[in-house]
Amino acid sequence: MKAEIMGIGTELLMGELTDTNSSWIASRLPALGIELQWVSIIGDDLPRLTEAFKQGMERSDIIFTTGGLGPTQDDLTREAIAAAFGETPIIQQEVVEDLERYFAARGGPMPQHNIKQANLIPSARFVPNRNGTAPGWWAERDGKIIICMPGPPGENQSMWEEQVEPQLAGLVEDEVTITRNIKTMGMSEGAVDEIVSEFFGVENPYLGIYSKADGIHLRVIARAKDTTTAHNMIAPVEKAIHERLGEYVWGYDDDTPEQAAGKSLMERGLSVAVMEMCTGGALANSITDNPNSVSYFKGGNVAYDGAALRSCGVPGEVMEKHGVVSQETANAMAEAVRRQLNADVGIAVTGVPGPGEFEGKPLGLAYICVSNGEKIREMEMRLPPRRVTIKRRVPNQALIELRRLVEETG
Amino acid sequence: MKAEIMGIGTELLMGELTDTNSSWIASRLPALGIELQWVSIIGDDLPRLTEAFKQGMERSDIIFTTGGLGPTQDDLTREAIAAAFGETPIIQQEVVEDLERYFAARGGPMPQHNIKQANLIPSARFVPNRNGTAPGWWAERDGKIIICMPGPPGENQSMWEEQVEPQLAGLVEDEVTITRNIKTMGMSEGAVDEIVSEFFGVENPYLGIYSKADGIHLRVIARAKDTTTAHNMIAPVEKAIHERLGEYVWGYDDDTPEQAAGKSLMERGLSVAVMEMCTGGALANSITDNPNSVSYFKGGNVAYDGAALRSCGVPGEVMEKHGVVSQETANAMAEAVRRQLNADVGIAVTGVPGPGEFEGKPLGLAYICVSNGEKIREMEMRLPPRRVTIKRRVPNQALIELRRLVEETG
Repeated sequence: MKAEIMGIGTELLMGELTDTNSSWIASRLPALGIELQWVSIIGDDLPRLTEAFKQGMERSDIIFTTGGLGPTQDDLTREAIAAAFGETPIIQQEVVEDLERYFAARGGPMPQHNIKQANLIPSARFVPNRNGTAPGWWAERDGKIIICMPGPPGENQSMWEEQVEPQLAGLVEDEVTITRNIKTMGMSEGAVDEIVSEFFGVENPYLGIYSKADGIHLRVIARAKDTTTAHNMIAPVEKAIHERLGEYVWGYDDDTPEQAAGKSLMERGLSVAVMEMCTGGALANSITDNPNSVSYFKGGNVAYDGAALRSCGVPGEVMEKHGVVSQETANAMAEAVRRQLNADVGIAVTGVPGPGEFEGKPLGLAYICVSNGEKIREMEMRLPPRRVTIKRRVPNQALIELRRLVEETG
Repeated sequence: MKAEIMGIGTELLMGELTDTNSSWIASRLPALGIELQWVSIIGDDLPRLTEAFKQGMERSDIIFTTGGLGPTQDDLTREAIAAAFGETPIIQQEVVEDLERYFAARGGPMPQHNIKQANLIPSARFVPNRNGTAPGWWAERDGKIIICMPGPPGENQSMWEEQVEPQLAGLVEDEVTITRNIKTMGMSEGAVDEIVSEFFGVENPYLGIYSKADGIHLRVIARAKDTTTAHNMIAPVEKAIHERLGEYVWGYDDDTPEQAAGKSLMERGLSVAVMEMCTGGALANSITDNPNSVSYFKGGNVAYDGAALRSCGVPGEVMEKHGVVSQETANAMAEAVRRQLNADVGIAVTGVPGPGEFEGKPLGLAYICVSNGEKIREMEMRLPPRRVTIKRRVPNQALIELRRLVEETG
């Protein structure tokens, strides 16, 4: 079953709003056996919307739309479907009454504009909206389906989960899609690509490779009649990836570095503290994105120069001899914060985040140390000279090193 | 000049990644006089990509693409343009050498697969990429333009700003669109909407209202023959907004809270230090997103419980009497970190970030204090009970309060 998604709204075309609905819906389709082929963003323009629906009815079996169901003159999704189908919308009295009740419950009369949300064509039925005034539409014609949902993500997601997905689940029965995402760090995209190259170019199971801020991801996608068959198709590819790249694998599926590291710490009842220079709080921020961090994060220091580091217990001699940006200072920082905050493991990062070079060292150079007092993991990184990249990639690498140290030492 | 944007990548269609590049590029087009008509997301599929380029060449004057320029077999943007144009890619030796230099600087040889990034067709030229291995493409044919940029937002945005936008600026001369974005904090969307309601519903200049993590934004958009005329159309609307909402306005256009606060500090030669509880590093992280922060940020402490706060110099009595999550503790934290790190201004935030309630206080409650030793600004916030919202909105509010304190005291 081939599908497309249309995000509708001029504000999306003006770049005032990012369309997050489409990727959210997209992520739900594989497990339903629905194959997404196109996503488009279309402005609030009747001729262009009508054309898009006509094209969609030709190339897709099912069209999902978000947006354009509001009460204003800009909201033209309903009108465009009516035009594409050559049908005339008629106001449904019972929906007018629903709307009046909605507004009465919020202490006011229904604005006259909202009456257009009660319009329906013969080929469509309403989809109830528990969280707003805009009911969805479910239209069917010539074996094709158009499902219209509201634009606000909260309304859209609850309508999807409560109404749309349950009704779709019965439609496609002959195929499921299972995805396995394997996350590596420490080898370049080109190198990973070479090592598993024989699996590329196969349609099913499909292997994709993606370069992300937390490393190189390998994604295996299998389509089959049932879940077991799909899993059996993925297994040999996953096994080969593990045999060749096992030491670089740090997580699976939706794992993030902060979750993977947090899980390793919690399993062993260990705590962690951080001292960070070039990441300016991004490492602590990443750790505390995990709600479980309350049970293992002891706190952190964000320093921005040698004096601040000295006041945090980092020996001045080390910094004088090797520089603030050096592996030796990173190691001293990790040990200092580990003791100061009485944590099992200390992590430190120091580096040059810009704007320019520092101590004659280039923008993008960074050092990481993870220490448990007995063992350390240390690492030098040379990153592109951009602050945002440094602040994203150094914490990811540090958390993966943290996980490795914890797993190594049992 | 009619444009379309294509986000290229199967991971976008699978919902594994949200396409943020398209809305970023979309937001840049109005000021260039380029009218965006279509945005689409297309998988890494040669026939479908080729078809999309053929369709785009018919309906648009200019096509922007992001993604599909990497070294792997999945990356097919170049191949699809070559197929749509009926041209054959040829490897360019000087680009191979650039790539070899790029990898050498990172301490390794170039993987063989990367050689495909040196491919070019006769109708295209390269666009340099300062931040990655994938050069862009600028292809022209039959008066139509295709501009291909890499998928990672950092590479894409710097290529746009340094290479693409300057070359586009000369292309369109008959209309300009000027946008003025006015950012407020402290009044609800409904209240702001009412106060400036007479300006809504006008097509040119158009007024839009948007609720964001850093407050309510009002965006005025004017289309005119030249910049002066467009500015003159915006001026009276902006003046009215200022007269009615001036005290709530904290920034304009691309200003962020960390930039606005940083600018106020730098103008006065003041420094700042932070102590944060419920934001777990997000406040320091936000401040240090500004590269200028090196000149005014003294550092920060990220604490996660009362014991850690005590070790940072926050009096135990205050916490025992009022609780760790209280205005009184926030005020004591701000003063403690200001002294400890010898800063002119101290900022503190404390609150309940979850997973559950704390000291019997609800998830989402937070207190902010900004202190310069003589004056303080304090604030209680009650936010939706979601960690990600708390970590985004509390730092924004704290930085806007910081700016207000600094501006107030001259």
